[in-house]
Amino acid sequence: MIELRNPLLGPRLAPTDGPFDPARAAREIERCLERDDCRRLETWLAEALAADVAEALSHLDATLAARALPLLAPAGRAEVFGYLPLDMQSALVAVLPRAPLTELLEHMSADERADLFNALPPALREQVLPALAQAEREDIRRLSAYGRDTAGAIMTSDYAALAPGLTAREALDELRRVAPDAETIYTAYVIDAGRRLIGVTSLRSLITATPDTRVSELMERNPIVARVGDDQEVVAERIRRYDFIALPILDDEGRLVGIVTADDAMDVAQAEATEDALLAGGTAGRLAGTVRGASIRQLYRLRVFWLVLLVFGNIFSGAGIAHFEDTIASHLALLFFLPLLIASAGNAGSQSATLMVRALATGDVRAQDWSRMLGREILVAGLLGTTMAVAISAIGVWRGGPDIAVVVAITMLVVVLIGSLIGMSLPFALSKFRLDPATASGPLVTSIADVAGVLVYFGIASVVLGP
Amino acid sequence: MIELRNPLLGPRLAPTDGPFDPARAAREIERCLERDDCRRLETWLAEALAADVAEALSHLDATLAARALPLLAPAGRAEVFGYLPLDMQSALVAVLPRAPLTELLEHMSADERADLFNALPPALREQVLPALAQAEREDIRRLSAYGRDTAGAIMTSDYAALAPGLTAREALDELRRVAPDAETIYTAYVIDAGRRLIGVTSLRSLITATPDTRVSELMERNPIVARVGDDQEVVAERIRRYDFIALPILDDEGRLVGIVTADDAMDVAQAEATEDALLAGGTAGRLAGTVRGASIRQLYRLRVFWLVLLVFGNIFSGAGIAHFEDTIASHLALLFFLPLLIASAGNAGSQSATLMVRALATGDVRAQDWSRMLGREILVAGLLGTTMAVAISAIGVWRGGPDIAVVVAITMLVVVLIGSLIGMSLPFALSKFRLDPATASGPLVTSIADVAGVLVYFGIASVVLGP
Repeated sequence: MIELRNPLLGPRLAPTDGPFDPARAAREIERCLERDDCRRLETWLAEALAADVAEALSHLDATLAARALPLLAPAGRAEVFGYLPLDMQSALVAVLPRAPLTELLEHMSADERADLFNALPPALREQVLPALAQAEREDIRRLSAYGRDTAGAIMTSDYAALAPGLTAREALDELRRVAPDAETIYTAYVIDAGRRLIGVTSLRSLITATPDTRVSELMERNPIVARVGDDQEVVAERIRRYDFIALPILDDEGRLVGIVTADDAMDVAQAEATEDALLAGGTAGRLAGTVRGASIRQLYRLRVFWLVLLVFGNIFSGAGIAHFEDTIASHLALLFFLPLLIASAGNAGSQSATLMVRALATGDVRAQDWSRMLGREILVAGLLGTTMAVAISAIGVWRGGPDIAVVVAITMLVVVLIGSLIGMSLPFALSKFRLDPATASGPLVTSIADVAGVLVYFGIASVVLGP
Repeated sequence: MIELRNPLLGPRLAPTDGPFDPARAAREIERCLERDDCRRLETWLAEALAADVAEALSHLDATLAARALPLLAPAGRAEVFGYLPLDMQSALVAVLPRAPLTELLEHMSADERADLFNALPPALREQVLPALAQAEREDIRRLSAYGRDTAGAIMTSDYAALAPGLTAREALDELRRVAPDAETIYTAYVIDAGRRLIGVTSLRSLITATPDTRVSELMERNPIVARVGDDQEVVAERIRRYDFIALPILDDEGRLVGIVTADDAMDVAQAEATEDALLAGGTAGRLAGTVRGASIRQLYRLRVFWLVLLVFGNIFSGAGIAHFEDTIASHLALLFFLPLLIASAGNAGSQSATLMVRALATGDVRAQDWSRMLGREILVAGLLGTTMAVAISAIGVWRGGPDIAVVVAITMLVVVLIGSLIGMSLPFALSKFRLDPATASGPLVTSIADVAGVLVYFGIASVVLGP
């Protein structure tokens, strides 16, 4: 895990703090494979880290990338492979010959291998599994049994465990022994004979302690943990909150079964932020690879659902307008204010929804806090609505006369209030029904607020101005 | 930094993997202070970590929190204080007596102290500074000289440095010596006599190496770095990308001046994701503290700017409608489709903008990639627009007859295309003018798409149906 990585070919030529250009690197790989001119590629590989090489490979199609993998030093191959997006990994599994594939899979870290396995189509799984050694097969079976996006699904079983009776000196020897395989040796987990977690200690404590101190005296008891079934977002937030290097994961009997490391927590946090942003932008939220690498088909599927669904939502707004056609026909000046009133309702709703979604996502506000937030929301929305009503009434007088100005100002106050209340309530309602609250900050709240805006506007207009 | 933290009072009573209730903890603190009944608080503090105690304190007002700080063991006070949101820290600085304040500031980590200092009003700064020791004053002056949100502003000067000529054994002794103060000893930085960074090594390498190996043989040369002036987002993304524990920060002469640790990178990533989400939701994007803790005044200021600005933006839509009043008066059935066409333009724009904003934020797409993305966007938007046009034309025939259906279908295709192109281009345009691209995914793109939608709709209608 979060170790300095230097998997490739010796010292780099210059400090690489400049922008790294994966597209150029991909072209060098192509040049090397197709024209047998590898000089520039070798220079470039000599300064690249695994994450960079993976990004360059992800610019190629799977067949080319499969031919490029053997160019890498054997030690680095599995690491580079682990950095590839899951859809690219699956594509490579389908085209790689059996022998190099087996070698690759055996060198991958346990958690990445299980993730890949979960992403493979069933036929390919059956093909890959028999080629692996018994230990790896069981590892995969165990890790891939956990539900998607749970702590169990992202944890690794490559952690450092210590017995409480060891001395600091013995513990250091043990950590040296497991160092080549463990994801981290900076945090070590103290377990009893039944693998129950009884404490946590750090390499910092062990090397600064006098060598004869027992691990049981150095360890911190009752550490913060997560359960295999916990959501990955909970795990990432716990690691961020307490500044951990890794979080131990327990099964339902309290036995230590894995750890999630901080680097994986950062990836989870980024993936969850992307998902929330995509949901807020009115898309389906899940993209297997990157935006850049997504196919036309993937992008179409990501977007079409909400676009079509919201058309039907907006038919209600249209029906609302149609219902008030007579009022509109006799006061056509009302139409001028329609877009800005509808938009204000939607904007106020989207602001409130976004604030609540983010507060819920960061754990700042909890699902049961709705009523506690309500009073403040009404106050803020009331002040905002009043400001907007004052601003718009001047334009109302100018464009439509005092009657229209009154209608527009009252409508503005009411729709900002209603929009805000819908916006702040919707995330709570969604999370109550175990849906992702982030859906609320998207066009869903805007559409609902739009319908409300149309009805309120023409409702008030028909009362004040007559039908 | 990302060490296990156990600053407080002895072993905890039970594994704390259950939900922690900061509000209840805050009430226990109040009960202890006001009714002198501290039994339950002591039980609770015995199982709390610094981040939890800080969250509980942030539920109290500053005067109460200032009285609560002395309840904590001296060793934990500065750490708890460091976890408080900046607005709460500033409020505490204003009310704490001089002696405990000085003690607190001296025990804070260098980066947190500089952040706090930057957040203080100038008068308070002048009051606090003379009370500190010379070394801390200079540290603050140096760290707070860097621009807001730069690597320099978030880095710490508490890092472990090694000379290249040391043996692994000597290096370990040096790390033991600096362990109490350094943010991390798991990564150590190899510098020459001029403090220029020549390599990086890890505690893992040092403890697994034979004791006589020189640091210069163990270190990785030409490490990945950032510059003091780089944006904090760049730093966080580099740490995430390469799975580092810390990233070294160099000044303009290439000298090592600090490090940013992974735990701070996680906080930066979360703050940036929150800022992007708030911008996308149509708010000002910056909130000093938490959503829960924000005052009515803060929330009002966060929201009013965009709400009012967008009203004026929507006046263009209104003017567009007013311009076509005659067409509308003779074909009132057109109004039924107005909300859903406008909304589809806005939704398509918001989808495209969100995808690009997120791709730019994660480094998946770069500022110069606009033209490379354009062709695919046109294809996807064309397919989506065609789907939507087919779906809506049936409703068009039903509600308005074949003429209206043609107008509505053509409009739908055109506005989904235009909306998508505006949405995917706006983030690039904003970043070209050094504005935050995330602003684009908010109501800005929706409003622009709305105006375009109105003009296209009635423009096409007046051509097809006659004025």
